[in-house]
Amino acid sequence: MNHALIRKILLKVIQMECIFMALPAITALLYGEYDKFSVYLGVGGIGYLICFALVKKFGKVRSGKFNAREGFVTVAFSWILLGAFGAIPFFITGEIPNYVDALFETVSGFTTTGSSILTDVEALSHASLMWRSFTHWVGGMGVLVFILAIQPLSGNYDMHIMRAESPGYSAQKLMPRMRDSAMVLYFIYLCMTAVLIMILCLEGMPLFDSVCHAFGTAGTGGFGVKNTSIAGYSNICKITITVFMTLFGVNFSFYYLLFSGKVKEALKIEEVRWYIGIYLAATVTIAFNIFRNGIYTNFGTAIQESAFQASSVMTTTGFATADFCTWPGFSQTIMVTLMFIGACTGSTGGGIKVSRIIAAFKLVRNETELSLHPRRVKPLYLEGGRVNERTTSTLKVYMTAFVLIFVGSILVVSIDDFDLITTFTAVAATINNIGPGLSVVGPTGNFSQFSYLSKFILIFDMLAGRLEIFPMLAIFTRKVWKRGA
Amino acid sequence: MNHALIRKILLKVIQMECIFMALPAITALLYGEYDKFSVYLGVGGIGYLICFALVKKFGKVRSGKFNAREGFVTVAFSWILLGAFGAIPFFITGEIPNYVDALFETVSGFTTTGSSILTDVEALSHASLMWRSFTHWVGGMGVLVFILAIQPLSGNYDMHIMRAESPGYSAQKLMPRMRDSAMVLYFIYLCMTAVLIMILCLEGMPLFDSVCHAFGTAGTGGFGVKNTSIAGYSNICKITITVFMTLFGVNFSFYYLLFSGKVKEALKIEEVRWYIGIYLAATVTIAFNIFRNGIYTNFGTAIQESAFQASSVMTTTGFATADFCTWPGFSQTIMVTLMFIGACTGSTGGGIKVSRIIAAFKLVRNETELSLHPRRVKPLYLEGGRVNERTTSTLKVYMTAFVLIFVGSILVVSIDDFDLITTFTAVAATINNIGPGLSVVGPTGNFSQFSYLSKFILIFDMLAGRLEIFPMLAIFTRKVWKRGA
Repeated sequence: MNHALIRKILLKVIQMECIFMALPAITALLYGEYDKFSVYLGVGGIGYLICFALVKKFGKVRSGKFNAREGFVTVAFSWILLGAFGAIPFFITGEIPNYVDALFETVSGFTTTGSSILTDVEALSHASLMWRSFTHWVGGMGVLVFILAIQPLSGNYDMHIMRAESPGYSAQKLMPRMRDSAMVLYFIYLCMTAVLIMILCLEGMPLFDSVCHAFGTAGTGGFGVKNTSIAGYSNICKITITVFMTLFGVNFSFYYLLFSGKVKEALKIEEVRWYIGIYLAATVTIAFNIFRNGIYTNFGTAIQESAFQASSVMTTTGFATADFCTWPGFSQTIMVTLMFIGACTGSTGGGIKVSRIIAAFKLVRNETELSLHPRRVKPLYLEGGRVNERTTSTLKVYMTAFVLIFVGSILVVSIDDFDLITTFTAVAATINNIGPGLSVVGPTGNFSQFSYLSKFILIFDMLAGRLEIFPMLAIFTRKVWKRGA
Repeated sequence: MNHALIRKILLKVIQMECIFMALPAITALLYGEYDKFSVYLGVGGIGYLICFALVKKFGKVRSGKFNAREGFVTVAFSWILLGAFGAIPFFITGEIPNYVDALFETVSGFTTTGSSILTDVEALSHASLMWRSFTHWVGGMGVLVFILAIQPLSGNYDMHIMRAESPGYSAQKLMPRMRDSAMVLYFIYLCMTAVLIMILCLEGMPLFDSVCHAFGTAGTGGFGVKNTSIAGYSNICKITITVFMTLFGVNFSFYYLLFSGKVKEALKIEEVRWYIGIYLAATVTIAFNIFRNGIYTNFGTAIQESAFQASSVMTTTGFATADFCTWPGFSQTIMVTLMFIGACTGSTGGGIKVSRIIAAFKLVRNETELSLHPRRVKPLYLEGGRVNERTTSTLKVYMTAFVLIFVGSILVVSIDDFDLITTFTAVAATINNIGPGLSVVGPTGNFSQFSYLSKFILIFDMLAGRLEIFPMLAIFTRKVWKRGA
């Protein structure tokens, strides 16, 4: 294990986070929140200097062995540190007086979960609201990917880091060099976010709200600036956000191909087709169900609310314009199912991911056929290509790993003795990086009532969900901690 | 596909079922239920003669190709037919006037699920109660295994059939010849059932009730003869049933080794140790939880009720002496978790099975380590032996297949618009072959209110659970239906 290099990368990550804190600091200045300004500037500045000094002292390493193992560990610890350090301003400003709660909120931000322990979001300063939403934007595309894009490390470890951090079963290799891929992805991400901010402003949403909501939408996070989430804005804003949430749930390779003029290839992506198909089917079915059950007397409203909520849950954003706890059982079940399916690989969304669901169906079909012809070999094909054995094995075990963590988490969280729906959806909402669940943790509720133990479990689940399980499990293996291994 | 031979075996299965109907017929005679007597005798007799004639006409085939494929298909169709034919007496006697309900009840019986559509069990005749409970006993050990034990088919297809029908990831190979293994297993099963009947009688339970409950306990089914299940019997009876439910959830290899004097080997079985460990841990935890929450003021009662309910759910029997819907959330979560874990392979119990849970943990651990060292190979070890690649692959995909069927079923059943807990636990209770769930389908409720569509889905789930998924999926592959394939 290349401890020296990992340490150096981790310091760089914190340094970058310190730079990110400039945004809330500037926000504080603009809104005259001078106490917050000093906190964000202080934490960011002091943090930066300490990291700078430590990099000077320990950062002599410039290369060395850096394999998948190092990539996994680096990513897992980076994300833990991002949360731990990013929580400090919330704690110091006293806006979240409990550090565990602040940690929960920050991890929820970076992992683009959007689960909150706040009972009153509107009480937060502009600076902290901006920081909260900005963590979504940063976390959505990946922090290490960002660092690679602007400041590549010498050596060939980019790939191992991107592979461990990027949502999806395999890193997007759009360009020959990983760094170029990272640049392209971030450029598309930035442009789409900027377009969304502009549209929202034109539609009459205040600039501050537009920026925060655009960050939340782009990262498929879900933190808002109002207690009623998006419900209080105009219809046109809601429709815009619906469209953009869905767009940010699409595999970014799609946009890359689109912008490179390869429209045909883009439209051929199996995952994107299924993603859109499932989304439309769910929206229409829910709309009919809630309309027939008299939740909305106008079918247009029913389809609009259904489209918003389905997109919010499937892309694991977690914004809300309606409380789907009051919807009939069938619609609720579809919503919970969408939570688990999630968005596309290579998007900012969470969940199990559409491509893994496609893979799951194919694996089960292959296995059934193999049980009939034990001697044959059946490779797995995805997106027209043959998946190698290593990746197939991981895909096979992924669901099992997911279920074990899921059930284990439920068992621990249930010690708090909430009702089954609360416990179940609290874990589902965090491990799938959605945000709100049902009942106590529903769109109008929050996560503040859980015990410390439960909060730590849910923090782990958010990280496991965002980093797709195995990096978070890897840090529990003995080998990672062995000296000189 | 050897259609001729499959047809012959299917006819033999129905013939055997006709013979089984002698037991309810005799019961009817003893209790003076002459109308029921004529129904069971008539259905059994006419069925036997028709099968006899058909075997004469079509049963000339004596050998031919018979591989895993034929084993899977034979077993799947046998079980469907067993349910379809076994439901006829309930329907003709008018005790279950709706054929779909009768089918649900019979499949629930053979698969040892114990989910019922009856609102008043006590209204049933003695004959039908006996038939209902007897289906549990027959289904517990497997019908085809029984046929193999008493009347082996020439050729070497025994293995493929046993492998497809026996609970567990691989057929028990206790003796060199499959037939001998089947004989030994059925002998142990018979003796343990007889002992249980005797003990219950000695403890003052009426003979009829004792026989029915012993059948339900041995097959880990759960059909009773009273509306209050086991709650109305004496404490000593409840304790006896607790012990025997747990015993029937143990891998039968354990008893075989014990009776062969290989006590040390028996005690070494990893699965049995974990099974007992999980059971005891769950019992004690639940007892403390319900005692502390004031459900029972006496800790002795708490531990007794906890032991009974935990055993009933873990072995997937489904008897009840208390309504655990009223227990606190933590206890309920443990109970639901036990539902999924299930009993040992090679027992009569259902669920995912303890050994598969052990395998799941090992697979996830291996996969995590492999993600750190991509080039290494990590074989799976279970019970001290290396598991071959084919079986490992099936184990890897099993949980995925389970989850897909589970979620798919929930989606369809939720169209009935029951609350989420009802829908979720109805599917959980049937696919794990337990019986009661929570809420509407709780220990004091039943399955009668579901739509036909939902009932068919739940029937499929019961069969998929009992036959461990892949045989039931196999019948949907094109190859099985292709002529001359």
